[in-house]
Amino acid sequence: MASSAPSSSAIEMDPNTANLRQPATTCDAWYGVAHGCTRKLGMKICGFLQKNNSLDEKGRMVGSFKESARNQMSCDNNERFTRAETDFSNLFARDLLPAKNGEEPTIQFLLEFVEILTNYVRKTFDRSTKVLDFHHPHQLLEGMEGFNLELSDQPESLEQILVDCRDTLKYGVRTGHPRFFNQLSSGLDIIGLAGEWLTSTANTNMFTYEIAPVFVLMEQLTLKKMREIIGWPNGDGDGLFSPGGAISNMYSVMVARYKYFPEVKTKGMSAAPRLVLFTSEHSHYSIKKAGAVLGFGKENGYVPLFVNATAGTTVYGAFDPINDIADICEKHNLWLHVDGAWGGGLLMSRKHRHKLSGVERANSVTWNPHKMMGVPLQCSAILVREKGILQGCNSLCAGYLFQPDKQYDVTYDTGDKAIQCGRHVDIFKFWLMWKAKHIDRCLELSEYLYNKIKNREGYEMVFEGQPQHTNVCFWYIPPSLRGMPDGDERREKLHRVAPKIKAMMMECGTTMVGYQPQGDKVNFFRMVVSNHAVTKSDIDFLIDEIERLGHDL
Amino acid sequence: MASSAPSSSAIEMDPNTANLRQPATTCDAWYGVAHGCTRKLGMKICGFLQKNNSLDEKGRMVGSFKESARNQMSCDNNERFTRAETDFSNLFARDLLPAKNGEEPTIQFLLEFVEILTNYVRKTFDRSTKVLDFHHPHQLLEGMEGFNLELSDQPESLEQILVDCRDTLKYGVRTGHPRFFNQLSSGLDIIGLAGEWLTSTANTNMFTYEIAPVFVLMEQLTLKKMREIIGWPNGDGDGLFSPGGAISNMYSVMVARYKYFPEVKTKGMSAAPRLVLFTSEHSHYSIKKAGAVLGFGKENGYVPLFVNATAGTTVYGAFDPINDIADICEKHNLWLHVDGAWGGGLLMSRKHRHKLSGVERANSVTWNPHKMMGVPLQCSAILVREKGILQGCNSLCAGYLFQPDKQYDVTYDTGDKAIQCGRHVDIFKFWLMWKAKHIDRCLELSEYLYNKIKNREGYEMVFEGQPQHTNVCFWYIPPSLRGMPDGDERREKLHRVAPKIKAMMMECGTTMVGYQPQGDKVNFFRMVVSNHAVTKSDIDFLIDEIERLGHDL
Repeated sequence: MASSAPSSSAIEMDPNTANLRQPATTCDAWYGVAHGCTRKLGMKICGFLQKNNSLDEKGRMVGSFKESARNQMSCDNNERFTRAETDFSNLFARDLLPAKNGEEPTIQFLLEFVEILTNYVRKTFDRSTKVLDFHHPHQLLEGMEGFNLELSDQPESLEQILVDCRDTLKYGVRTGHPRFFNQLSSGLDIIGLAGEWLTSTANTNMFTYEIAPVFVLMEQLTLKKMREIIGWPNGDGDGLFSPGGAISNMYSVMVARYKYFPEVKTKGMSAAPRLVLFTSEHSHYSIKKAGAVLGFGKENGYVPLFVNATAGTTVYGAFDPINDIADICEKHNLWLHVDGAWGGGLLMSRKHRHKLSGVERANSVTWNPHKMMGVPLQCSAILVREKGILQGCNSLCAGYLFQPDKQYDVTYDTGDKAIQCGRHVDIFKFWLMWKAKHIDRCLELSEYLYNKIKNREGYEMVFEGQPQHTNVCFWYIPPSLRGMPDGDERREKLHRVAPKIKAMMMECGTTMVGYQPQGDKVNFFRMVVSNHAVTKSDIDFLIDEIERLGHDL
Repeated sequence: MASSAPSSSAIEMDPNTANLRQPATTCDAWYGVAHGCTRKLGMKICGFLQKNNSLDEKGRMVGSFKESARNQMSCDNNERFTRAETDFSNLFARDLLPAKNGEEPTIQFLLEFVEILTNYVRKTFDRSTKVLDFHHPHQLLEGMEGFNLELSDQPESLEQILVDCRDTLKYGVRTGHPRFFNQLSSGLDIIGLAGEWLTSTANTNMFTYEIAPVFVLMEQLTLKKMREIIGWPNGDGDGLFSPGGAISNMYSVMVARYKYFPEVKTKGMSAAPRLVLFTSEHSHYSIKKAGAVLGFGKENGYVPLFVNATAGTTVYGAFDPINDIADICEKHNLWLHVDGAWGGGLLMSRKHRHKLSGVERANSVTWNPHKMMGVPLQCSAILVREKGILQGCNSLCAGYLFQPDKQYDVTYDTGDKAIQCGRHVDIFKFWLMWKAKHIDRCLELSEYLYNKIKNREGYEMVFEGQPQHTNVCFWYIPPSLRGMPDGDERREKLHRVAPKIKAMMMECGTTMVGYQPQGDKVNFFRMVVSNHAVTKSDIDFLIDEIERLGHDL
């Protein structure tokens, strides 16, 4: 698979020494720089550098040398840090690395910063804290107790920066709080969090193996594993992590269009007949949006191209019957996409994966680990059954960015198969979570909620039967509406109940849960659980809150 | 701007008390939960909760209460952490929060983790360390000294997770190293890094004010400031942070299409005449890609719609003459986009902003703070002069996601104007860096390099004259080619020089710099500086390295 190291007439590169560990030595610090090469080359570099570096740089090098020698004593080149009382009011960003003597202020600043973050983490899981401390936009814009959002051209001290960060967290929403039920993505997974911290410290880009070798391979292995779980033979196929489910769904439409009408890539939509996409009423709006973005129409008489089956709708958590839809797609030679942004996580569960039966017949699948699997946002995968088609669809062979004459196997470079150029590293946190735990989820809590309210006075379920996902959709009927006959007046009143209760919840900051209308159904609550921290007591709490706040409406 | 709090018959909400700080008190812990409401309501909640919580939860609450009371003693509710020797070999992810007694393991794990990260930060700025420790894909896949990239279903101990993280960093590329010149985005800004750590701890989503109140406002204020700097009256207009420059450029094409042919949104590209986009040969390939994605064609005879002027090309760092192009666009009523992904940063510099003269005449601008301004990836803005057009172009009014009947001014919600649904918080690190420093950049180092090599033996410049941005493009001519007459043989040999030198650089790990061909020009080096840590000595080092590695080719 991989190409061999380049031959060189002047320098003897021994590929086998590429991972040689240097013995502890008092050699010049520059030796360390050259330690991927042979000793002979290392010495050559040392000699060269000593001859060529300026005096100023030499002073710096002596310092580095001491550091380096000290590092070589410990087995992993690392040091334990020590907190020191630091006055940040006289320190500024310019005093941090790469400033001269910036190392100590940098470490102390980061440690102080981490204290703010770990305190936030602790409080996130503490049910005696609020989910949020709500303020209207104008209140925050006016400045809350000195928290000034405006930008100025005068640099602030690090002390003030730390205060700004505390305030940012204080006026934000604790999406990891066990009583935050407002979104499909919630929770604060500690391993995932650590993974994100590392990702931002590494600060690299997924577009080439060259600058993200480990992350590119992690992505490749993880996508393969996900394709195996979907059920595609040997986990073969293609895929990418994209900036979210909407973009993943857009990829699926693009790839389908390329598969059937490759000339659209160069000649535009006028090279194809008028095409149409099929998706169900309750599917995510990103399919429609992809139609608008990519230049499709939405009228009768067009040529069918693409069918989206949703595995876990946004509101009801419902699953389309994939096998039935696949039969039709096969018969009519249509592209079948499964939008498992929300429901894909159930593929990991022996008990629940049957809800996605037939997913292995799909041509493409969207699956967002940042939803059901609790991975920090953003982490969404587009998976494609046909190998190479993402490359075919999106490559422009920009040789100035993706050089074909590198020393390694450039098929590992992913840049040209994405619609992005730079691409954030979304894989590491997910890979690390997978390493750290058996990823699985149970739906017990939503069953608990469903069983608790289905026959309870003052509740009506929005759809019949047991929920397929963790979504439980229901109306709370305040006592004043309970005897009222169905009709416009009751509907109008009921429509206002959920927004009112939600507004009061947010003002109190005790919990957050979503509501929305759907079709001809007036506003109802949509309860979802995707946070490991939630327990039955939190479900009880939600019901109590709704009744407390809604009783007199 | 903001709507008022909802009226409620049962609960007296006093909006003025929403930010009341509670006096230190020994009241029930739940009091804290209710502290956004009036005291009366707080007491009501307390009474209610005490009555309704299970015994199990009560035990937990007593613990929380002690915690809460203790917190109220200190002014900011925070605690200082203490490192403790911890054996992570017997701890697993399941022992961390939200596990019972998970707080201490969580804090200790995160502190241990931060030690790994701070050590990496220190080494990143240490010139005696390598930029990378290169391995081929097959080597990493086979497992380097026990670093196993494969996923299994057995959870690893936290000890092993920490080892995995050290290895991930060890085999990665130090993009913040002062001798990493390989990409337009480089450097490791400490304030930006801290900002990313906070962002991932907050783990929220930009789509509604409801769950990202502070970040949404920061984005709004920062985009306004950027529009003021561009020169649009009062900083009015529209904008978003998107997942990268390619997506930002795609937005510009979409908005232009919507402006002139709004019916494409619902009726597809067949509702418009055949449209064409204009962009220069050296512009970023994402403009072409947007054409392919959005269903445009690329042939003569089409109707002109959109012109892209590049401010800072990827390879040469060249600036198109915006004013001249704007004249033509105005005359022919075309949309003018300025792709300042790389060059936009110069707008912050009094000395260099003249290179973007006329940018205020653009209809839209792409500007990536993650490039020249050193903000961690991803941070890219699409800025649009006409207010409301992003909403018009992209909104689908998905009432089930963006409810119009919330208690706050929902014009602050950004979700419906994006092509994404969930959107990562990219603003905070940038906002924080802006607060922390006067953001400016000088191009002195590239002038230094240019002056050093323009007349130096063995160098040829790719284009004439002083570079406009930090890009310095040059060929290194090994002695063996210096006397050779121009022709195919010399061209072919020269084409192989840069890849060979780059490969050796990577094997040695001493530095990284990009190369590419462009048009009929064979492979040449493209040097860029976007990292504050770079000094003249690093420029000298690069030249020395090129000559050392290339001398005998």
